[in-house]
Amino acid sequence: MKRRHFLRRLGGGAAIAGVSLATGCKEAPKVDCGAAETPSFTPVKWKMVTTWPKNFPGLGTGANTLARLITEMSGGRIDVKVYGAKELVPAFEVFDAVSQGTAELGHGSAYYWKGKSEGAQFFSTVPFGLTADEMNAWLYFGGGMELWRETYRPFGLVPLAAGNTGVQMAGWFNREINSLDDLKGLKMRIPGLGGEVLARAGGTPVSLPGGELFTSLQSGAIDATEWVGPYNDLAFGLYKAAKYYYYPGWHEPGTTLECIVNQKAFEALPDDLKEIVNSAARVANQEILTEYVARNNQALQTLVNEHHVDVRKLPDEVLLRLRDLSDEVVAEIAGKDELSQRIYTSFQAFRKQVMSWSAISEQAYLNARAM
Amino acid sequence: MKRRHFLRRLGGGAAIAGVSLATGCKEAPKVDCGAAETPSFTPVKWKMVTTWPKNFPGLGTGANTLARLITEMSGGRIDVKVYGAKELVPAFEVFDAVSQGTAELGHGSAYYWKGKSEGAQFFSTVPFGLTADEMNAWLYFGGGMELWRETYRPFGLVPLAAGNTGVQMAGWFNREINSLDDLKGLKMRIPGLGGEVLARAGGTPVSLPGGELFTSLQSGAIDATEWVGPYNDLAFGLYKAAKYYYYPGWHEPGTTLECIVNQKAFEALPDDLKEIVNSAARVANQEILTEYVARNNQALQTLVNEHHVDVRKLPDEVLLRLRDLSDEVVAEIAGKDELSQRIYTSFQAFRKQVMSWSAISEQAYLNARAM
Repeated sequence: MKRRHFLRRLGGGAAIAGVSLATGCKEAPKVDCGAAETPSFTPVKWKMVTTWPKNFPGLGTGANTLARLITEMSGGRIDVKVYGAKELVPAFEVFDAVSQGTAELGHGSAYYWKGKSEGAQFFSTVPFGLTADEMNAWLYFGGGMELWRETYRPFGLVPLAAGNTGVQMAGWFNREINSLDDLKGLKMRIPGLGGEVLARAGGTPVSLPGGELFTSLQSGAIDATEWVGPYNDLAFGLYKAAKYYYYPGWHEPGTTLECIVNQKAFEALPDDLKEIVNSAARVANQEILTEYVARNNQALQTLVNEHHVDVRKLPDEVLLRLRDLSDEVVAEIAGKDELSQRIYTSFQAFRKQVMSWSAISEQAYLNARAM
Repeated sequence: MKRRHFLRRLGGGAAIAGVSLATGCKEAPKVDCGAAETPSFTPVKWKMVTTWPKNFPGLGTGANTLARLITEMSGGRIDVKVYGAKELVPAFEVFDAVSQGTAELGHGSAYYWKGKSEGAQFFSTVPFGLTADEMNAWLYFGGGMELWRETYRPFGLVPLAAGNTGVQMAGWFNREINSLDDLKGLKMRIPGLGGEVLARAGGTPVSLPGGELFTSLQSGAIDATEWVGPYNDLAFGLYKAAKYYYYPGWHEPGTTLECIVNQKAFEALPDDLKEIVNSAARVANQEILTEYVARNNQALQTLVNEHHVDVRKLPDEVLLRLRDLSDEVVAEIAGKDELSQRIYTSFQAFRKQVMSWSAISEQAYLNARAM
């Protein structure tokens, strides 16, 4: 239709003009709306609540990256604003807030929600469980994601893997650990399944928020604490309050972080935006792990070379005992309910197989390179 | 503005109606253009040429994933079609084809282009180099990407990391390797730097296309060959032609795959599509590694349990010698030109540091779990 004919019609009456207006834009959007460039749109504003302090290194900044990617890839059609813990809701209300639609997105980790479903812990990490790359293999190719979606579906949530800390450190100790006896009576801040394992080994697990670790170590209220790894631990100054820095982090060998999406909000998206949200989470999944590998590496040099931290390996005897107790504790989750049983079975079968492959690939290579 | 007022204005004259039409779309696209749904657009058709046979497991299917993500996240604004090796250009002309704009995208690996710049090999893998996670840490947080972009800029190409095979296997052998002497005179298909290392250890590296490996092994024309890992090797049936399957893959410990983008085509994109191309490559980077971890794991079970493959570790004496020779061969790349020198220096500094971190995280954990 030529322009003057179109305009003539517009003058012909309100009803016709209305129709022409609507179809004119739909038929030739590249002319009328400039859609060959970044398309015009009405932004949707989404809130992302998180279990981390705002901008917390690695975790909070990782949530920021996830939000930025969704906003940028969507050309602003989804405009995501990030809220630190307590800014909109407390850390441990993130799950409910997204479930109820108070926020469309959440960033945290699944083991915080074991009160909703015991099996959820497998989607974060369990003691002597999978490394970051192995977790992704179980989630994306081993049936893990399907079980995770099944776990969250009753709550109106879509889970996405969106970060990993990599192997953590065993923690900061003011007591030398030379044998199993040294675990007896050890007062250590270590939450969750790791704490249960320590209790069975004769220790006393203590629950403390991150902000109280330093003074509790310094005052002797606790003998030891786990936190994350060199990058986060250096920032907390924990090396000033403890003598020994033990590895490896048997209790959290590759903690997966999650992005949870309100299901109704997700399903209302067109296909391209659904894929953008999916992919942004996968980029964050890799980005956060990569940042931890790089920055832990740098921070370790600082801890050792500048602060002369005494880095020590837990004795084999201790690791073996912790491993046996971990097997017990993890197996007990399976008994909680039918879904947790299925998650445990899937996880354990994958773990057994992938250990054979890791033994002759990553593990054998790292050992050969370090000989 | 209420609807009847708007329509009344339209009736007021052609000029005013014309203005109202144009600004109406920009001011209220959700009403006039339906842009809150997937926006209308004029698709751009892009070609992706690859160095892999079409749909080759892991590599070719990874390229397909990358193309699909760009197409889906852009809502079809970039419609990518994938070409296998030889379909549009031969495998080793992918770099030139994207450089010259014959195709907008390419998928391959940087060590194929050492003829353009010797230092490019560091952006794939080098013998006794970095694992997949360590490579990402160097690239994204250790200065690697900046050097990679500098290397490809003169060719009008933007490089993106877009896949990783993980640790490969040392290969299939019809000769037992029990000592350094067993490498003497070994005729092995092993290209690139690994081949140079083998030559210095007294072996005879042979160059053969993948399609000839099976018959060459069977006829005794070669004593051994490397390929990738259980997933790809099982599909090739190599277990029928060789007795021993050796690990670890010292020559390719975490081979990064690349997506190359024609720079002019990339720069012509609006910001949202630039970020979509970037992020699609990062998703492919993780997805391909994850697929290899999962499928190598499954294929290894099949090789061992069904085909009774004799899986063996290279003796420490052999690995130590190969490592020393690898250090020599890799260091020689630095002498080729000024840029290669800078890439080598950056890579080596990062490698030294990250080995300290991997020793107390991934390596220590894998060893503890497998005790």
